[in-house]
Amino acid sequence: MKREIIQKLSNRNATIGIIGLGYIGLPLVHRFSSEGYKVIGIDISKEKVDSLNEGENYIQHLPEFVIKESIANGFIASIDYEMVKEMDVIIICVPTPLSPNKDPDLSFVKAALDSIAPFLRRGQAVSLESTTYPFTTRDVVLPKINELNLEVGRDIFLIYSPEREDPGNAKFSIREIPKLVSGISSDCLEVGIKIFGSIVDEVIPVSSTQTAEMAKLLENIHRAVNIGLVNEMKMLCDRMDIDIHEVIDAAASKPFGFTPYYPGPGLGGHCIPIDPFYLTWKAKEYGLNTKFIELAGEINENMPQWVFSKVINSMNDDRKPIAGSNILVLGVAYKKNVGDLRESPALEIIDLLLSKGAIVEFSDPFVENLSFIQNNNFLDKSVHLEPDVLSSKDLVIFTTDHDEFDKDMIRENSKKIIDTRGIYKGSFINVVKA
Amino acid sequence: MKREIIQKLSNRNATIGIIGLGYIGLPLVHRFSSEGYKVIGIDISKEKVDSLNEGENYIQHLPEFVIKESIANGFIASIDYEMVKEMDVIIICVPTPLSPNKDPDLSFVKAALDSIAPFLRRGQAVSLESTTYPFTTRDVVLPKINELNLEVGRDIFLIYSPEREDPGNAKFSIREIPKLVSGISSDCLEVGIKIFGSIVDEVIPVSSTQTAEMAKLLENIHRAVNIGLVNEMKMLCDRMDIDIHEVIDAAASKPFGFTPYYPGPGLGGHCIPIDPFYLTWKAKEYGLNTKFIELAGEINENMPQWVFSKVINSMNDDRKPIAGSNILVLGVAYKKNVGDLRESPALEIIDLLLSKGAIVEFSDPFVENLSFIQNNNFLDKSVHLEPDVLSSKDLVIFTTDHDEFDKDMIRENSKKIIDTRGIYKGSFINVVKA
Repeated sequence: MKREIIQKLSNRNATIGIIGLGYIGLPLVHRFSSEGYKVIGIDISKEKVDSLNEGENYIQHLPEFVIKESIANGFIASIDYEMVKEMDVIIICVPTPLSPNKDPDLSFVKAALDSIAPFLRRGQAVSLESTTYPFTTRDVVLPKINELNLEVGRDIFLIYSPEREDPGNAKFSIREIPKLVSGISSDCLEVGIKIFGSIVDEVIPVSSTQTAEMAKLLENIHRAVNIGLVNEMKMLCDRMDIDIHEVIDAAASKPFGFTPYYPGPGLGGHCIPIDPFYLTWKAKEYGLNTKFIELAGEINENMPQWVFSKVINSMNDDRKPIAGSNILVLGVAYKKNVGDLRESPALEIIDLLLSKGAIVEFSDPFVENLSFIQNNNFLDKSVHLEPDVLSSKDLVIFTTDHDEFDKDMIRENSKKIIDTRGIYKGSFINVVKA
Repeated sequence: MKREIIQKLSNRNATIGIIGLGYIGLPLVHRFSSEGYKVIGIDISKEKVDSLNEGENYIQHLPEFVIKESIANGFIASIDYEMVKEMDVIIICVPTPLSPNKDPDLSFVKAALDSIAPFLRRGQAVSLESTTYPFTTRDVVLPKINELNLEVGRDIFLIYSPEREDPGNAKFSIREIPKLVSGISSDCLEVGIKIFGSIVDEVIPVSSTQTAEMAKLLENIHRAVNIGLVNEMKMLCDRMDIDIHEVIDAAASKPFGFTPYYPGPGLGGHCIPIDPFYLTWKAKEYGLNTKFIELAGEINENMPQWVFSKVINSMNDDRKPIAGSNILVLGVAYKKNVGDLRESPALEIIDLLLSKGAIVEFSDPFVENLSFIQNNNFLDKSVHLEPDVLSSKDLVIFTTDHDEFDKDMIRENSKKIIDTRGIYKGSFINVVKA
């Protein structure tokens, strides 16, 4: 069967199935359909599927053309798993979140597997794209396929090739980011290289699925730890009255041995605050603790609280309580130039402010409303930034440094700004670095 | 006086004094003398001074020409501090080690200051080059100069400009590495920029001496923490039977957001294992703990012991005890292509082996002998690597991956190798990754 699927891929006759049409799945849909493949997408949300079929793009940071071009190239979305029969390649792009106790929650992966299982057949390839702990593909995915009387590596090919999406990163397109590919057997790997080699400039073959799983985790662990480190350094520098951003910029002038990471109001997004704990959980099985991950988690998760304490102190310096004060939060997305609210520390800061009775508004060019926050004191629609809006506030908290924000205008019109992103270089009487 | 010293520097009439003629001071001697300055060096070791005046280079990784060219350009070394009178710029390049309790040991800095103090005069500039904790220049150096009835910033100029030497790094010369410069006042900063701007391509002005001190520490803290992280990941991967070096190489194929650091047998050298604890000590004054630094220290310091446990297990698999076995240690320097033994983890591993009765030899092209290790079972002269030397050993431990080592020849002739540096990619029957 290997020759057949490789042949189909070479001829672009293969039909590519994408399971999960979110911020990982949709760019893959576009990439495969741009290369001439027939692409079918499946999602459990009828609403998403309908809007996609109408050419609508529901993910704000994705360019408009992603869906429109895919549709023009024949892409269809469906909620019907029976379409798996028509697919030659099935790529699973579902979320891998944490449970409330910070254990891996593979329920979406397992549900996707259960849904596709009845329709799997000889000659197909199944590839997992989700970030997960080492041995997931071998110990969780493989057994489900083995139940089907299909021999993996001969009848059907099982691949692990983790996503490397960086939402809002305009520098690298998905085609330009080298893609790790691994397989349960060498034939699986060969099929995987053929699949992904047709949509990215470079595939990096990895010797086992657990190695690829670990590599993907290491990328995000590296980031979580380095951000944790600079956040710790920020709190120390704050006590010493040293500007951490000047320190980092100075250190970054060294042309080797140092890579700058920047502190902030806390970690957000779907990856950095979550993925590392997948390894923490797995490590326990081996009697080991992932101490750096846990320390980074502890420090990063404390940052919104730390920013809030800076807010309290700063308001107190002005002889103002939090209760009843008018506070504007600038940027609620977890990072610049996207509208993604997942795990956003700004939401936690808003929550803390509201809990102490502040009258809170927010402004974010990527987020229209925060209607899920229920509080009488909260204006849940993004306000338009005007000089008099800013000057009417007791305090402005700069939580996300979207490029669209007019930083000079904001500084010139705000009574006081809590700058959590090192936006304002040098000293300004109305800027408190936090 | 500012105009005068700046004028002298412009005309290359200024005499530059380097206090401390070690691996930091000597490259500065060469750099200043190459730019046409008269350079006088002072060191407390008569032996070093005499050998330097004879054109001898006692630091192995420095190229021969460093001393020879400096002497040709008029450099003289001395043990006589009275020569400070003749200097216009005094650059202090003395060690800043740790006490046995991991507290900063500024005794060399203080001794240098006490020695130069009687000869300081108006119109001079004093610059500290040593790595140290934030506020050292302001709180330790400045008061000593203030005692002299010289007004800093008007009569005399006090600068902090930390070294960024990377011994063995052939890619960047001292001239090409941007140099941080800070001063006690804006006039001090201006003089500092003039001094170092004449020997490096780019100076980076920093707003205060404590910011520059912190920036230098952050560079090394970043490194210590990242190495600690990959060492922790190495121990976990080892349990999971995943090759950490393949994981790191795979992750490093990501073109953004990840910088590879490599695990090893432990940290060595004069910087990374030491400098971070300068901040740890200072942070306590502010009631804060530097948790990442302490965790990195804990993990990195444990690595030689971990490698040793891999040695024991590996020997045991061969039904051999450590006692009486013939073990060869390849590379005793703390990093590749230098002969620097300071804090080298290889020495600790040798110590552990000897304490358990192994018969240990070593080979290192940069280190002739380890005569300070006293043990009947220890051959303290570096052995020449020949196939039959290797094949006669029960075990070879690869601790430092000098380029000069013939890795294929070593693998082909060794019964078993403990590879602590990820030298051997892929699987070999006689290579144990540790």
